[in-house]
Amino acid sequence: MSSAGTTLRKLREQKPLVHQITNYVVMNETANATLALGALPVMAHAGEEVEEMARIASSLVLNIGTLSEHWIEAMLIAGAAASERKIPIVLDPVGAGATAYRTVTAHRILELVKVTVLRGNAGEVATLVGAQAEVRGVESIGTGLDAAELARAAARSFGLVASVTGAVDHVSDGERVLTVSNGDALLATVTGTGCMSSALTGCFLAAKPDDPLAAAAEALAAFGVAAEDAARGAEGPGTFHARLYDALYALEPETLDARVRIEEL
Amino acid sequence: MSSAGTTLRKLREQKPLVHQITNYVVMNETANATLALGALPVMAHAGEEVEEMARIASSLVLNIGTLSEHWIEAMLIAGAAASERKIPIVLDPVGAGATAYRTVTAHRILELVKVTVLRGNAGEVATLVGAQAEVRGVESIGTGLDAAELARAAARSFGLVASVTGAVDHVSDGERVLTVSNGDALLATVTGTGCMSSALTGCFLAAKPDDPLAAAAEALAAFGVAAEDAARGAEGPGTFHARLYDALYALEPETLDARVRIEEL
Amino acid sequence: MSSAGTTLRKLREQKPLVHQITNYVVMNETANATLALGALPVMAHAGEEVEEMARIASSLVLNIGTLSEHWIEAMLIAGAAASERKIPIVLDPVGAGATAYRTVTAHRILELVKVTVLRGNAGEVATLVGAQAEVRGVESIGTGLDAAELARAAARSFGLVASVTGAVDHVSDGERVLTVSNGDALLATVTGTGCMSSALTGCFLAAKPDDPLAAAAEALAAFGVAAEDAARGAEGPGTFHARLYDALYALEPETLDARVRIEEL
Repeated sequence: MSSAGTTLRKLREQKPLVHQITNYVVMNETANATLALGALPVMAHAGEEVEEMARIASSLVLNIGTLSEHWIEAMLIAGAAASERKIPIVLDPVGAGATAYRTVTAHRILELVKVTVLRGNAGEVATLVGAQAEVRGVESIGTGLDAAELARAAARSFGLVASVTGAVDHVSDGERVLTVSNGDALLATVTGTGCMSSALTGCFLAAKPDDPLAAAAEALAAFGVAAEDAARGAEGPGTFHARLYDALYALEPETLDARVRIEEL
Repeated sequence: MSSAGTTLRKLREQKPLVHQITNYVVMNETANATLALGALPVMAHAGEEVEEMARIASSLVLNIGTLSEHWIEAMLIAGAAASERKIPIVLDPVGAGATAYRTVTAHRILELVKVTVLRGNAGEVATLVGAQAEVRGVESIGTGLDAAELARAAARSFGLVASVTGAVDHVSDGERVLTVSNGDALLATVTGTGCMSSALTGCFLAAKPDDPLAAAAEALAAFGVAAEDAARGAEGPGTFHARLYDALYALEPETLDARVRIEEL
Repeated sequence: MSSAGTTLRKLREQKPLVHQITNYVVMNETANATLALGALPVMAHAGEEVEEMARIASSLVLNIGTLSEHWIEAMLIAGAAASERKIPIVLDPVGAGATAYRTVTAHRILELVKVTVLRGNAGEVATLVGAQAEVRGVESIGTGLDAAELARAAARSFGLVASVTGAVDHVSDGERVLTVSNGDALLATVTGTGCMSSALTGCFLAAKPDDPLAAAAEALAAFGVAAEDAARGAEGPGTFHARLYDALYALEPETLDARVRIEEL
């Protein structure tokens, strides 16, 4: 039986190193979320060092939010090193569907790297499975698909766990579909909360590498619980954002499971 | 008659996409300010995608705060695409006057791109019109010019709206000069508030593309009102900064005009 | 007699320009810490402008937290310009020991640039002096060395002031060793507080260039006092982080010395 509390306890004992090659906009935020949760973030993107860094990490998070050629190459090198060492890998295809460059790059990474969890919004994931989707910048405006079906289709199509976030999140390994109903509407008012959820997915995968479906769902649930706590007392996006790190830090393995709202469809 | 409240309401209904090619220091901050106000930010700087991104955006913000060649090229490509589509463009010439590289680059962009609003501090704008100015790093230390004259001269010189921010802001289209007296002294204690005001100028331009003089003044006024709200209850630059996003998010179209202090000289 | 209060007063009068070539993760944070303290930050990394910027700055801070070749070249150019002008230079060897690329780069900078203060954690500094050390990502896990000996050895080895931070900080010029016992455990829960301490070291050096040993210790003490203030009333890493800028801004030259805990071993 999956327990977010147990995974969180293990994560805090192990303090796994989570190597993140991510975008300029959210680097500080995903590093702080990782640290507040209890893991160790490291940001490194130079071709000269990503292979070495990926090899000593417990998971790797690739995020294409602000792309350029050198960064893509670094992602592919790090991804190859992690794949070879069976280190779990998260891909966040930020903005896939908004420009061809992002869509093509996400596909290229999915082809060349053994991605464990694909974490994106509905528009991004729908784009990648070839469905109709509207992505405005990095925001999902809408798709014609049922979210559960979308998650299942993406999981099957790419042979990974698909983690499709939204008001309710849908996580699937191609067979099972888990829904996660934790969270708060204020998450959508802060840039990079999607990226944070990908970083935290990397943290949970590091602590639970053998069950990526559960790890991905637990990560979203834990993040959602923290968001619920942060929202209490917040006066808007800015104070919510600051309180989100407080809440991640304050998550208790003992009480987490009682608050987690993961269900199997 | 110009109404910041009306523009804000329209902006929140339209949720325009504001494409920003900006500096590493403030990317998160300008994205969050954009989102808190009610528009959609997107950060994209790769030569491979900026043209496509600029074409789907409702405005483009170029900021030279942390320059390098690839980024300048991206700004020129995005700027050309936006110019062609008549998408309004904001240029923030961060640090012009501090180094020749910044001054030359700002001039190059002004020459090659159809900039709608030039938003800078007095030192930066004075540098660009060839007047005496002292810029220490990215801070304006002083100019010999009257701010209204400076704004008018810059507007005429470059054929755009010049938005010169300071304790009192001066916005001019070369003929008229509007002053904006909203704001709070704490704005000067947080890095990137100038850059945020440029991003918000991009937001207001997206909602009011036909009247860039009014849009630029309204953006500064709305930002200033938010700063006034954020300052109440702030204990210093850090809590002020967090509360600034709360305040942008809480701005009300209904009550905004009563608080806006825009006057025509 | 060293007085952090006197140095802080001088710094706020002079508002020195502190040129920082630092990593993507913390740029906003070190700029804001610099500004909150009372100095002027400027971030510039283009090969085309770093020499000019370094020449007008009062100190230079080099931080290798997110490396790549262009950035290293810029650091060397800026470092050469600052060395020639006898502008004090801080090096923060983030992650030295985690990958060969970081270790080699830190050594390269130490060789080619006249570094005034080397500010790092025990694992990073131990790596650079060739001692046993474990660095996980950018975190020091442990060294076999006494911290005072490590600081003294590093200072002698590289002919500079070594500033080794930890629960208690050790600062040495190769002869004397000062300990700094200010601070709060929450500092370790926020990304980039080490980088901030390097930036603030640059600020204090700018105001006290003739006594780098005292300046480095005073910077850490002032930062530690601010952390103590920020921790009061903080609910976790996020609110602590916001309050840290409030506290830096609120530091009073008049009362600082009474709170500083610097001792000579």
